[in-house]
Amino acid sequence: MSDQPNLDHLYVVLVNTRNPLNIGAAARAMSNFGFRHLRVVNPFEASFREARSAVGASELLAKAEAFSSLAEAVADCSLVIGTTAANDRELHHPLRSLEQGSRFLRKQLPFTNVAILFGSEKRGLSNDDFTHCHWLMRIPTRDEHSSMNLGQAVAVCLYELIRSPRNARTEAGPKPATSGDLNRIGDTLLESLDASGYIKPNTSKATGEKIHRLLRRLKLNSDDAVVLLGMLRKMLWKLKSP
Amino acid sequence: MSDQPNLDHLYVVLVNTRNPLNIGAAARAMSNFGFRHLRVVNPFEASFREARSAVGASELLAKAEAFSSLAEAVADCSLVIGTTAANDRELHHPLRSLEQGSRFLRKQLPFTNVAILFGSEKRGLSNDDFTHCHWLMRIPTRDEHSSMNLGQAVAVCLYELIRSPRNARTEAGPKPATSGDLNRIGDTLLESLDASGYIKPNTSKATGEKIHRLLRRLKLNSDDAVVLLGMLRKMLWKLKSP
Repeated sequence: MSDQPNLDHLYVVLVNTRNPLNIGAAARAMSNFGFRHLRVVNPFEASFREARSAVGASELLAKAEAFSSLAEAVADCSLVIGTTAANDRELHHPLRSLEQGSRFLRKQLPFTNVAILFGSEKRGLSNDDFTHCHWLMRIPTRDEHSSMNLGQAVAVCLYELIRSPRNARTEAGPKPATSGDLNRIGDTLLESLDASGYIKPNTSKATGEKIHRLLRRLKLNSDDAVVLLGMLRKMLWKLKSP
Repeated sequence: MSDQPNLDHLYVVLVNTRNPLNIGAAARAMSNFGFRHLRVVNPFEASFREARSAVGASELLAKAEAFSSLAEAVADCSLVIGTTAANDRELHHPLRSLEQGSRFLRKQLPFTNVAILFGSEKRGLSNDDFTHCHWLMRIPTRDEHSSMNLGQAVAVCLYELIRSPRNARTEAGPKPATSGDLNRIGDTLLESLDASGYIKPNTSKATGEKIHRLLRRLKLNSDDAVVLLGMLRKMLWKLKSP
C-alpha cells in the first residue's frame, strides 16, 4: 500500500482505555495501515506512551495527544463516529455496518477531519460518549460473543478503511460543521430553552443529550453553523434581557 | 451475524507461536467472528490453553488441537493458505491480496476443509512452512511497517472472511420532514428572530429566504421537526410574553 495523504485526516480516539498495552496495540495497527493521529481521553495509565506493544510504532505512540474530555478530543473534527459491539442496546443513533460506514467515511476523508472513537475494554463507549457521535459503526461480530479485544477492533476497523481505496469517490461541497461548532450551538440552544421554561429541572440532562443527537443528524455545514449560532445568540440575549 | 455453517470447514493454524497471549487473542477473534477450529503447531508454551486473553473463548481455546508438525496439522485440509506480511521476499508461491484470496476461499468453504496459517511473531512462516501452502495471502499493510501483531492479523483475516459485501443491509429510518413541517419551523424561527431584534426592516425578506434554504439543507426528519418546532414555539412564547 502506498501512503494515502487523506488518512492524515483521520483521528483514532481511545476513550477511557484501561490497559496501556491496548493503546500500544492500537498504535501498531495504525502504523501498519498508514494512520498517524492517535488521541487518548482519560487513559487509566498516565505512562501509556511507553507501552511495549507498540512494536514499530513507538514514535506514533509518543506523539499521541491526551485529553481530559471527549469534547476537547473531537473539537476539530466534523465527523465523529462511535464504534460499538451492541446490536440490541437502545441506540438512539443511526447504526451502520463497518463496511457501509467505512464507505461513507472514506468519501469524507479528503475534505474533513474524522474521528473514530473506541470505548473502554469493559464497557465500550457510554451514552454520554455517544452524544458526540454523528453515527455509530458496528463490526459484524456474533451476537453471542460480540465484544472484541480493543487492539483487534482497531485493527479490523482500520483495515476496512484502507481496503480497496480506489472506490473512494470525491465530492466537494461546503465543509461540514465541526464538533466544536455543534457544541456551541447546542449549549446556546439549551440555555435559550432553559430561559424559556422549556426545560424542567429533572429533564435537563435528557434534553441536552437529545439536542446533541439532533444537531448531529442535521448535517450542518460550517456556514450554516455560523448563521444558526448568530440567530440563537440573539434570541438568547433577548430572552435574558429584563 | 448469524452462524454460517460453512465456517466449520475453516481451520486457523498457528505455527510456532511464542506468546500464549497471542494464541488466546486469536481464539477470541475466532469466537467473535464465528470460527471454531483452532490448531497450534509447536507452541512455545505448553500451557497456552490457559491464556487469559481468550476472553469469552476459553472453551474454544481448551478444545484447540496441538500438533508437533505442520504436515499433521493440515493433513485433512484440501486447501492450505499461508499468510505473510512480505511483499518483496522471494516468494515462489502465488500471492493474493487478503481481499482476493478471501473471495476465492469463501467459495471453497462449502466443499472442503481450508487451513489458514499464521507464523511466529518474529519470523512469520518459514519457507519450509510455505511448502505446505497452495498459495499465500497478504494483508495490505504499509511496506515501511508491514509486520502486524499476531492476534490483530488473525482478527483482520477472519473479519475479511465473514464480511459479506452483498448483504450490506439498508436500514429504514424516520421519514423526512415535509415541506409543511419546514415552513412551520421557518415561520416560527422568523417570528422569534423578529421578536429578538435580529431582523432589520429592510432585511426581513432576505432573512426569510435564507432560513428557508438553510432548513432544506439540514435534511430534517419528521420526528426532529416536531421536536424543533416545539422548542421554537416555547422560545417564541417567552420572547413575546411581557
